[in-house]
Amino acid sequence: MNKKPLILVTNDDGITAKGIRALVEVASEFGEVVVVAPDSPQSGKGHAITLHHPLWLHQSDIFEGIESFECTGTPVDCVKLAKHVVLKDRTVDLCVSGINHGSNASLNILYSGTMSAAMEASLEGINSIGFSLLDFSYDANFEPAKKYVRHIIKQVLENGMGKTKLFNVNIPNLPEGEIKGIKVCKQADGQWIEDFKANEDPFGRKYYWMTGVFVNHDQSENADIINLSKGYVTVVPSAHDLTDYPALEGLEFVEL
Amino acid sequence: MNKKPLILVTNDDGITAKGIRALVEVASEFGEVVVVAPDSPQSGKGHAITLHHPLWLHQSDIFEGIESFECTGTPVDCVKLAKHVVLKDRTVDLCVSGINHGSNASLNILYSGTMSAAMEASLEGINSIGFSLLDFSYDANFEPAKKYVRHIIKQVLENGMGKTKLFNVNIPNLPEGEIKGIKVCKQADGQWIEDFKANEDPFGRKYYWMTGVFVNHDQSENADIINLSKGYVTVVPSAHDLTDYPALEGLEFVEL
Repeated sequence: MNKKPLILVTNDDGITAKGIRALVEVASEFGEVVVVAPDSPQSGKGHAITLHHPLWLHQSDIFEGIESFECTGTPVDCVKLAKHVVLKDRTVDLCVSGINHGSNASLNILYSGTMSAAMEASLEGINSIGFSLLDFSYDANFEPAKKYVRHIIKQVLENGMGKTKLFNVNIPNLPEGEIKGIKVCKQADGQWIEDFKANEDPFGRKYYWMTGVFVNHDQSENADIINLSKGYVTVVPSAHDLTDYPALEGLEFVEL
Repeated sequence: MNKKPLILVTNDDGITAKGIRALVEVASEFGEVVVVAPDSPQSGKGHAITLHHPLWLHQSDIFEGIESFECTGTPVDCVKLAKHVVLKDRTVDLCVSGINHGSNASLNILYSGTMSAAMEASLEGINSIGFSLLDFSYDANFEPAKKYVRHIIKQVLENGMGKTKLFNVNIPNLPEGEIKGIKVCKQADGQWIEDFKANEDPFGRKYYWMTGVFVNHDQSENADIINLSKGYVTVVPSAHDLTDYPALEGLEFVEL
């Protein structure tokens, strides 16, 4: 690649999160970075878009020397506004989303604003990577992750992404020396077992607050969860075609 | 099936929408119906969940003789609350979501609260069907669709869903006599070409409001969009594993 690549950076934890700061730092080593990120935390927003009310986009000076905008919408709204307003008529070479505070391995990809933002860019034909660190705390330490983020961005800019347009990258929460390497994986089969904490609001009405534990059901050698637990960074090439192809065969309806 | 099946009904257009009324009517012919639906329109919410604030659930008398709740959360929140609070310790035989006002064919499945609610139930191991009518208007006519909704629910309750747990059913907006039948399809490859209408809010700030046109790129004989345009009801068996399997092979990372 001869010209300086144009890299769109977004996330779902909001433009002030520590994770996006780490990602902007690494992405800036490779090209021109433009940030369009939510103005508030948007964890768990999945592929939500804003249809029935307008969106605002405000220039931000949060990242020195980097053109940045905060947006009142969801992560997917941010990518749509980046593509069609902020970067209209420009070719985006790569979209990176994150670094998410917390895992997006297994079926967490469905709920994740970070991954949905990256998927939205991939729908626009842009090579896209969602990065997540397995530490959901506000003050997570992204330093050990940076080396792997850098390595994966470099490889994608230099060699592309093979047959896919979207990587779901998860990084174990370990000191740098303890991360074992990078493994290409499939999305593990797993399940959230939810619970709702019930309580009473100040007006005497009962409310429910979601909580839950994730249970891994997949011991396959190439499933993401098991490789994360062994200390590997996992990369799952991901798609937006939800057709259940194995189920297509033999399925038919009695005519009316 | 000997005992009366327990059917959970939800949607994304909200509990007062005309589409859920049609679905409750049809589902009630087959078993005990319990409704847990959003208290406000939630179109385009995708797989969003509410993590950082509580949810309220209010009993509703909107459907005579049917146990119904309106929920302050997203469509996926509704399903989680239905499963873990409202119907705790009961076995749900089927979840039906919709009937959506507007198409959820092709990649609209990603943005759709209707389909995400159905998918969430499928993640819980419940056979699930999302129904959508190709008319997004508030006052859409669901009468011709009911015959097909009834037929598909009947077949699923009697014979199951084959190898899948989730159907994405779309129904053309045609008079009953002009609907040609039911086709099992794959998700068509297509694209939204977005545009943003810019304007000024009452405070002098520029805002953006999303609009767009959907472009179908898929002329395959078994793609959903093309079969809808021919007058067929389309059924796409759908999955939650987003791994891009064809891309897995040959993908590797240079070791650090």
